[in-house]
Parts: sequence; C-alpha cells; structure tokens
Amino acid sequence: MKRRVFFISDRTGITAETLGASLLTQFPDIDFQRHHIPFVTNELAARAALATIARKTEQDDEPPLVFSTLTDPAVQRIVAASSPFVFDLFGTFIEPLEAALGCASSHTAGRMHGMGDSSAYERRVSALNYTLGHDDGLAPRDLDEADLVLVGVSRCGKTPTCLYLAMHYSLRAANYPLTDDDFESNSLPRSLRPCRDKLYGLTIVPEQLSRIRRERRPHGDYSTLARCRAEVQQAEALFRSENIPFLDTTTVSIEEIAATIVRDMGLH
Amino acid sequence: MKRRVFFISDRTGITAETLGASLLTQFPDIDFQRHHIPFVTNELAARAALATIARKTEQDDEPPLVFSTLTDPAVQRIVAASSPFVFDLFGTFIEPLEAALGCASSHTAGRMHGMGDSSAYERRVSALNYTLGHDDGLAPRDLDEADLVLVGVSRCGKTPTCLYLAMHYSLRAANYPLTDDDFESNSLPRSLRPCRDKLYGLTIVPEQLSRIRRERRPHGDYSTLARCRAEVQQAEALFRSENIPFLDTTTVSIEEIAATIVRDMGLH
Repeated sequence: MKRRVFFISDRTGITAETLGASLLTQFPDIDFQRHHIPFVTNELAARAALATIARKTEQDDEPPLVFSTLTDPAVQRIVAASSPFVFDLFGTFIEPLEAALGCASSHTAGRMHGMGDSSAYERRVSALNYTLGHDDGLAPRDLDEADLVLVGVSRCGKTPTCLYLAMHYSLRAANYPLTDDDFESNSLPRSLRPCRDKLYGLTIVPEQLSRIRRERRPHGDYSTLARCRAEVQQAEALFRSENIPFLDTTTVSIEEIAATIVRDMGLH
Repeated sequence: MKRRVFFISDRTGITAETLGASLLTQFPDIDFQRHHIPFVTNELAARAALATIARKTEQDDEPPLVFSTLTDPAVQRIVAASSPFVFDLFGTFIEPLEAALGCASSHTAGRMHGMGDSSAYERRVSALNYTLGHDDGLAPRDLDEADLVLVGVSRCGKTPTCLYLAMHYSLRAANYPLTDDDFESNSLPRSLRPCRDKLYGLTIVPEQLSRIRRERRPHGDYSTLARCRAEVQQAEALFRSENIPFLDTTTVSIEEIAATIVRDMGLH
C-alpha cells in the first residue's frame, strides 16, 4: 500500500521531518512517498504549497498525510485545507503550553534551527574544528582540551560518532585508533594516560568489521576475519583491564551511539 | 522566570528534544532548565524517571514541563503521572494517524534513529568518508563522484556545512576554497569546470569573516578587514559571472544553510 506524505515547515523542516518520520515508522507496512516543502514563511508560500500538493496528488486514490510545523496561525490555516489529514505538530501543543506557563507564545517563526546566540554557534564550529584536527590519533599530545576521546580498532565507527558529537552536542571529541603496537605493550597507550577519565571504547562484531574493511581494502591481512577477531578481542580485553566503558556499535545508529556515550559520561 | 523541563524518550531523545526545544523557543522570556532522560524502554525505567523528576523538582515552586516520545502506552501511562503538564508528543498523533491510514500502529520502540536498513547506514558513512577526503580542496581531480561542491573563501562555513550534508542527507559534499590564484585568473578554477552543475557558493559579511579569521590567526594580512572585503567581493563577482547559485551564511545556522542548498539544488 502506498501513501503520499508532505512535510511542510516555515524553516528547514527538520522538526516536522524528525517527528513525522518517527510516527511513520509505526506503520511499517505502508510505502510512504515523501515530499518536503520547507521555508513556507507567508500566506503566498502557503498557497503555493497547497497548489503543489494538489498537483502531486491528482492521480492518487487516497488523500495525502500532511505534517506541518508552522508557527504563524494564518499560514497554518491555509495549509490545513490541503488534506483531511493535516497533523499540526506545532500548534497542537501551543495552547496547552500557554496554559501551563501562564503566558502567551510569541508566534515567531521557528527559531529552533536559527542561529541562536552566536556563542553557541562558535562553540559548535570550534568543536567541529577540534574534532577534525584530532581524528584518527592526530595530535595525540594535545588531548587536554578534549571533552572525550573515543578509542577502538580501525573502522569501528569512531570518526562518524566524533563528528556527530561535535555537530549536535558541541563536544570536542577526539579519537584514537588502537593498533598492534598498543596491543603488544598490553597497557594503555602512553598518550592516553593523562586523559584516562575521558576515554570511551567502541567495539564491533568481527564479521561486520571484516566486511567494512574489505570494502575499503579488499586484499591483504587488514580485512581478514582472523585479523579482525584478534584485534577486537585485544581491544575489548584492554577496555576491561583498564576499566574503560565501551559500547558495541554493530547494530546501533550513529545517533544512538552518541546519545549513549553522552548519557554514560554525563556530558549533556 | 525559571521553569524546569524534562525530555523523556525510549531511544535517543532526539525527536522529543527537537520538537520540545522548538516549542520552547516560543516562550523567550522564560529561563528553561533542561534535563534529558533517554532510553526509558520499560516500566522499571519509567518509574526511575518518575523518581528522578520528583527529586529534581522537590524545591521548585512550579511543576515541571515534561515532553515525552514514548511508543509503549504502558510506559507513557507511568510517565504521565510525573506532572500536570506532560506533553505526549508521540501518542497524541498515533490515534488520528491510525484513523487516517485505516490500520493499527505497531507500537514498536522508536525506530527512527535505529540502524534502519544497513544500506542507508553505509551510504551515510560512505558520504562522510568522501566528504572528509574532499575537504578544503583535497583531491580536486576526483570530483566526479561528488553530489555537490561548495565553493567560497576560507572560513565562510564550507566544512561544517559539508559535514552536515553528509551526516543528515548522505550527500557526498566536497568543498573548494577560493584563493588569490583563482581570483587572478578571473575565471572558474580549472578543476571545477567539469562539475560546474554541482557548484554552490557560500559567502559571508566581511566583518564577520575578519572576526572569525582573527580568532584563528590573530596576526598578519589573512584576517584584516581590507583583505576579507576584497576576497568576498571577488568571490561574489565570480559566482555572478559564472552563474553559480550562492547563499550568505552570516546569520544562518548550519541546518538552514544545508536545507537551503538541498532545496535549491533539488537534492532531497
């Protein structure tokens, strides 16, 4: 079964899409065809959105679902005519919130993903720059300023997780790849010792690691299952002996890995 | 005026936080103190969350606001007792959605930020790796595989935007910094000519650029206002003469820059 869905917002559409998509996962048997109409900031844009929806659904048997996050009630009223099934993700909660807080809402266009205060913006970009400069064991002498340091074998998910932590939590997330040299010494790498409390381990099922590495370097020892097994085993042994908290990333999304680390390390 | 707010979810809390924070921006005069309780997956965890909320609000004059995205109705029922002001961001829409779709929801824990299908995960990580390998004009000979190439002067926001595009839209986003050499030739840099249709320009107000550069390199010509003005002017002249669409990033968040580019280039 197919069903057309529109996400309409007055800014980026991130909020509409995040909650809307989350709700749609509850209906796994339906094949949703998604359309995005961002930056619907005034009545003119709302009427254009209405026309787009009418055109795209002309041939459809069923009316579409429409998820909206519009802060201007006049714009929302126009969009409300687009389908019998319009979900006003924003307005639905504004009145109850006004009641709870005992004051009127400002009805200003979604400021959530606006610049916000510029210091927050700078913190974020600075975290991203730090993270890029401390990827893959770069500058290991310089970890004093890190908020956390992810450790694990090559290709277990450290880099994407660090970038997500920097982008969304403005954390200075360094990472350090464990290699044979580290395993031979059978103790915490020297450069990590001063930041022991900032360490968090990532691990992965060897079969998955082998598959990921094979895509990158199909030949040689690096991607063999035997080598991956040995590395993962040694990394986990190190985490245990050094009391480093760690997480298996095999079936976990980047969002969830990041949220788990932030919770475990009390970094929010 | 202060008010305590809790975001409760059964997974990462991203959905609860995105919509909840968006709603709170409508009440700019209130100083919200935010707490996050993710991974509330069962009734035991829900009772623990209840206890946490009770403990943290003991000294408060007003009951807290609670935003929840819980898919299990039994868990939600427990959390509903935490305050007179519980906003069930998820459940509120489930029944109307079931009516619209004519079928029951699966009530499975938020799969939105789960792994999803592994091909989507691989596309995302592959986009991130591509983007990291094509930052700042790296490998300019190799732009065939790029979905888009951001161009602009140094420090105008290319790198954070590329990382966001890769992380959230799984786009292979390369970037190319415009320098004096490019301006002297007064035409599109040679390595960009084969990918003319994938180019998107970023620009920035010279005063802001100068401030950003000064933080990075306080001395020398690089951060002077005169130099920044000249570079920005030449970059914008190039965008115009080459018909490259471009955006001023000065007061725009990374999310909005990314959403605008995706819309303008039809990449969603």
